[in-house]
Amino acid sequence: MPAKSTNSPKQPLATARRNRDAEVLRAAIEVFSEKGYSAASVQEVGDRVGLLKGSLYHYISSKESVLYRIFHEAHEEARAIMDAVAALELPPRQHLYEYLRRLTLWYLANRQRSQLYFTEWRYLTGDYADVVRKERREFEGYVRAIIVRAHVDGTTRPDLDTMLASFAAVAAVNSVLVWFKPSGSYAAQHIAAEIAELACALVFCTSRTPDIPLPPSATTVPGLRG
Amino acid sequence: MPAKSTNSPKQPLATARRNRDAEVLRAAIEVFSEKGYSAASVQEVGDRVGLLKGSLYHYISSKESVLYRIFHEAHEEARAIMDAVAALELPPRQHLYEYLRRLTLWYLANRQRSQLYFTEWRYLTGDYADVVRKERREFEGYVRAIIVRAHVDGTTRPDLDTMLASFAAVAAVNSVLVWFKPSGSYAAQHIAAEIAELACALVFCTSRTPDIPLPPSATTVPGLRG
Repeated sequence: MPAKSTNSPKQPLATARRNRDAEVLRAAIEVFSEKGYSAASVQEVGDRVGLLKGSLYHYISSKESVLYRIFHEAHEEARAIMDAVAALELPPRQHLYEYLRRLTLWYLANRQRSQLYFTEWRYLTGDYADVVRKERREFEGYVRAIIVRAHVDGTTRPDLDTMLASFAAVAAVNSVLVWFKPSGSYAAQHIAAEIAELACALVFCTSRTPDIPLPPSATTVPGLRG
Repeated sequence: MPAKSTNSPKQPLATARRNRDAEVLRAAIEVFSEKGYSAASVQEVGDRVGLLKGSLYHYISSKESVLYRIFHEAHEEARAIMDAVAALELPPRQHLYEYLRRLTLWYLANRQRSQLYFTEWRYLTGDYADVVRKERREFEGYVRAIIVRAHVDGTTRPDLDTMLASFAAVAAVNSVLVWFKPSGSYAAQHIAAEIAELACALVFCTSRTPDIPLPPSATTVPGLRG
């Protein structure tokens, strides 16, 4: 009936399909978050969006493929942030700050999805696991590369352990997923700016804690090397 | 028959009981870690230490009581670390450093137990949950109190958000549970010293990241306040 439409006959269907796709993915994020991936079923995802078994399999070939898509699309969005901030060509400290600030905002806007990533990614197998592992390395490598560059430039303390510093900086950012309460009094912009500043401080602080005179017995722990 | 024993007749039994208690708790930590608390059964814990259903209930009154004991005993050990470091009467930065260094070593020596705490504590209910929540507040409050003291003393930057700083410092330490590999090349003492230093840097760094000129569009995120 809409004679004036410039769409080809197939386009509205394809659009509807795409929309349901996004809807199915959102429902899967909710169901996996509430029940845990291993306890959740594909049918529960279908129930949430009102899809019966037959049509559900047009959207979901397997439970694992949905989990994979959730993570893969999250990584595409994270990569867009990495690229956008890299394009600003900032010095290392500002580069790290601005990336972690935007990443924190993304986490806060996508909390369920981000939390799923950290708790459920171990359920992926085979090629799915390989791709997500590769993406995870890219994600972690981005922060590490900034810190290594700063270390080489001499803008960090000389004895900084760049690997541990990148783990700790990322951990500070990831922690918002644990303690952030949407009902709390903190604004997202404040949290993002302050967490990014704290993570930068951890990397770029040049002063060290003064030595503490301790008896040798205070530093040994049973069952640990070194 | 051991006529020369100075133990009362009941003591060997009591000792055996105590030993089995510790053994049952260790087995529960393993089983809960491997299967997750909700999927694990008390009988699986019994199987691991060779206890039949009847005698198992002398040691375990309920699955939840075991989870509670695991956390409660972990907290007692953490409290011993807090007290020992407080007794050194160090200035705030050294106080924070030495506490986080020892806490990291404790995590590395008790990895399964510490991981359980962070992933499974939400399964506790009623009084058990109340006690563990109180202990958690004590644990988090210890770091917060050191940072607040430093902030009041003027040894941090004046605009430090002490709450976010304590979250981030604790997150840096907790992260060892995620990335530490016992087979890796890092020695526990190096990790503990460096992670404590990084967490202190985050709190005590007085320099700030220089401003980044950005268009206002770069700072808005859909779906977020502030």
